[in-house]
Amino acid sequence: MERSNLRDKAAIVGIGETEYSKGSGMNHTALLLQAAARAIEDAGLSPKDIDGVVPAINLITFEDLAVNLGTEDLKYAASPNMGGASSVATLLSAAMAVASGIATNVLCVAGWNGYSAMRFSGLGKAMDASASPMPMPSMLAKLRDFEMPYGVFVPAQWYAPMAIRHMHEYGTTSRQLGAVAVACRKHAQLNERAMMRGRPMTIDDHQNSRMIVTPFRLFDCSLESDGAAAAVVTSADRAADMRHRPVYIMGVAEGHPVPADQIAGRRDMFQIGLSFAAPRAFAVAGVTPKDIDVAEIYDCFTWSVICQLEAMGFCERGEGGPFVEGGRIELGGELPINTHGGLLSQAHIMGMNHVVEAVRQLRGDAGEAQVKDAEIALVTGWGDLADGSIAILRR
Amino acid sequence: MERSNLRDKAAIVGIGETEYSKGSGMNHTALLLQAAARAIEDAGLSPKDIDGVVPAINLITFEDLAVNLGTEDLKYAASPNMGGASSVATLLSAAMAVASGIATNVLCVAGWNGYSAMRFSGLGKAMDASASPMPMPSMLAKLRDFEMPYGVFVPAQWYAPMAIRHMHEYGTTSRQLGAVAVACRKHAQLNERAMMRGRPMTIDDHQNSRMIVTPFRLFDCSLESDGAAAAVVTSADRAADMRHRPVYIMGVAEGHPVPADQIAGRRDMFQIGLSFAAPRAFAVAGVTPKDIDVAEIYDCFTWSVICQLEAMGFCERGEGGPFVEGGRIELGGELPINTHGGLLSQAHIMGMNHVVEAVRQLRGDAGEAQVKDAEIALVTGWGDLADGSIAILRR
Repeated sequence: MERSNLRDKAAIVGIGETEYSKGSGMNHTALLLQAAARAIEDAGLSPKDIDGVVPAINLITFEDLAVNLGTEDLKYAASPNMGGASSVATLLSAAMAVASGIATNVLCVAGWNGYSAMRFSGLGKAMDASASPMPMPSMLAKLRDFEMPYGVFVPAQWYAPMAIRHMHEYGTTSRQLGAVAVACRKHAQLNERAMMRGRPMTIDDHQNSRMIVTPFRLFDCSLESDGAAAAVVTSADRAADMRHRPVYIMGVAEGHPVPADQIAGRRDMFQIGLSFAAPRAFAVAGVTPKDIDVAEIYDCFTWSVICQLEAMGFCERGEGGPFVEGGRIELGGELPINTHGGLLSQAHIMGMNHVVEAVRQLRGDAGEAQVKDAEIALVTGWGDLADGSIAILRR
Repeated sequence: MERSNLRDKAAIVGIGETEYSKGSGMNHTALLLQAAARAIEDAGLSPKDIDGVVPAINLITFEDLAVNLGTEDLKYAASPNMGGASSVATLLSAAMAVASGIATNVLCVAGWNGYSAMRFSGLGKAMDASASPMPMPSMLAKLRDFEMPYGVFVPAQWYAPMAIRHMHEYGTTSRQLGAVAVACRKHAQLNERAMMRGRPMTIDDHQNSRMIVTPFRLFDCSLESDGAAAAVVTSADRAADMRHRPVYIMGVAEGHPVPADQIAGRRDMFQIGLSFAAPRAFAVAGVTPKDIDVAEIYDCFTWSVICQLEAMGFCERGEGGPFVEGGRIELGGELPINTHGGLLSQAHIMGMNHVVEAVRQLRGDAGEAQVKDAEIALVTGWGDLADGSIAILRR
């Protein structure tokens, strides 16, 4: 396998977040700017130092982001536009830009008013763009033309057949899905920034929650949230002199399943984007799943975590269900995941909060949720019809 | 100035175009795919060899592009999304991706049904997205919220005040604008792929054409066209063994004016995106304007060419008008520009046809329009509110 030469060339040197809520009271641009400004300040930089911007998805133009931030000489801008895989994919573009010397300090940012303006549970209505307060990104043609007309509007509907197939093939159970939800909720209790702090959940709560799309119960689904998060990436050389201990990007990759535009057409439904991306990222990083101290795994749905653990090789195909049981993925377990609460119990802002949490863990700043001596962390993204992204980070 | 390390790391090894017309009879996806397939074939590759896709703007999802093309392991995807500056900016993303070893062969593609589906002269209507046959990209907020409500819908309206200011400050004349139109039209007569072949134009024709937005007459405005073009970028190492003589990317950059989101708010109206990008690209390439044998300059309007010539240093500020007179920019002149006819007389497909023509010139394949012994070519892009991009290419 041909390998990228990006290992340890770039580092995350600043992180920032807005409050996560069900009503930000801010418009989309203001949300992104608040997270961005906090990340830039955290890096000890000023907005004028930012010369690259990579918004995860194109719900905002680069110009609007740059101007309102106060950037004056923007040298690179692009958007990954892969739905929930976009946040981690921003790190790929940013690492390329700083390694190439095209830009010096690149801002990666994601967020939305996912509750108050662009709620998934109202997506059918939002597809009528004239009724939407935000522009809609381009849609996958097959989904738009051949599935949505039959009422297949929301991600719970897209991924449910994958989960059902997994349960059928490998005996994965709803209680195993619940173990992911319980772990995330447990971790959210330790995080003052988590929307579900103060609202603990048991496996029985999960089992008793109402069915949304079989097999996904309410507590298998991620939150609908307003909020944004951001990270600043610079070259490894410059990072060494900055305010915080740098978090180096050891390996980063994106991947797309085949065919990328339709789940039902795949020969292997569990060969997701991450199945392609993870081996590349691990090879570049020079580590294996055994080396990972903490993993922030994109958890749009509980089952997605199980599928990704298998795709990355943390366990064999079909063994993801048993793998997540018994506390293995909880703090104190063999592989603590989503130590901030994840999309399931902190907030769903397309996964940039996972990047922020990985950096906190590697800085040793994760408070009560700190994984002791965490040296290597992993972050993943999952978007559109199971496109994937992965970053392996080290302190 | 900090320099990028991308010099000569990547090369364009394949080019492709559709027919340019006022009615393609194909949908947007089919247009892009036809251009892409031709570029891939020209490179001597198969669609399976493509592992990066960079559509200029996100009127299509990466997934739709990849799946319909037959790509099976997509490792990189992003869109510059800078309007007419996007086509040349795709070369920046592609060069970064192959130089980083993230992808091997990257497809850059742009196009649209700019006449039959998304016609600028009907843009007011198209802004009502429910009436549009294509998704609209994100809009600049200030333009959308504070200018469009007053009827400022089309690019001719956005840039006209810049041209008027230039005429006021420097005495630039309508006949000088016309010299650009005449040069492009003259070159189109030599190009069987040009929409305006067979329809020659004199400076009097230009002067007698109707006013669209003062000072832009009909023949100051680029065409409205259906069509698409594409280029395949690979690493310089691999390029050496491929079907055609490689065209190396010596320097490539993008730039954004300040503020990027509003022309009227700029302290210096002629400090455009290219004013920032060009010095960086020339520095990396290690050449100066004197070394350029042929220049394909984004010509959404005649005056834009004059402004860009000044921004790149081909002449002093204010001297662009006299510079383009007397045949200097025509074939046989000191600096032949838009040897294919440009957006003004070949087709307006967001400028990817400029990239294709530059490659043809450097391969020595430009037929009757060939600039003898062309060794170094330059291509520019101009989009949104004068964002800019530039690539300096050599054979």
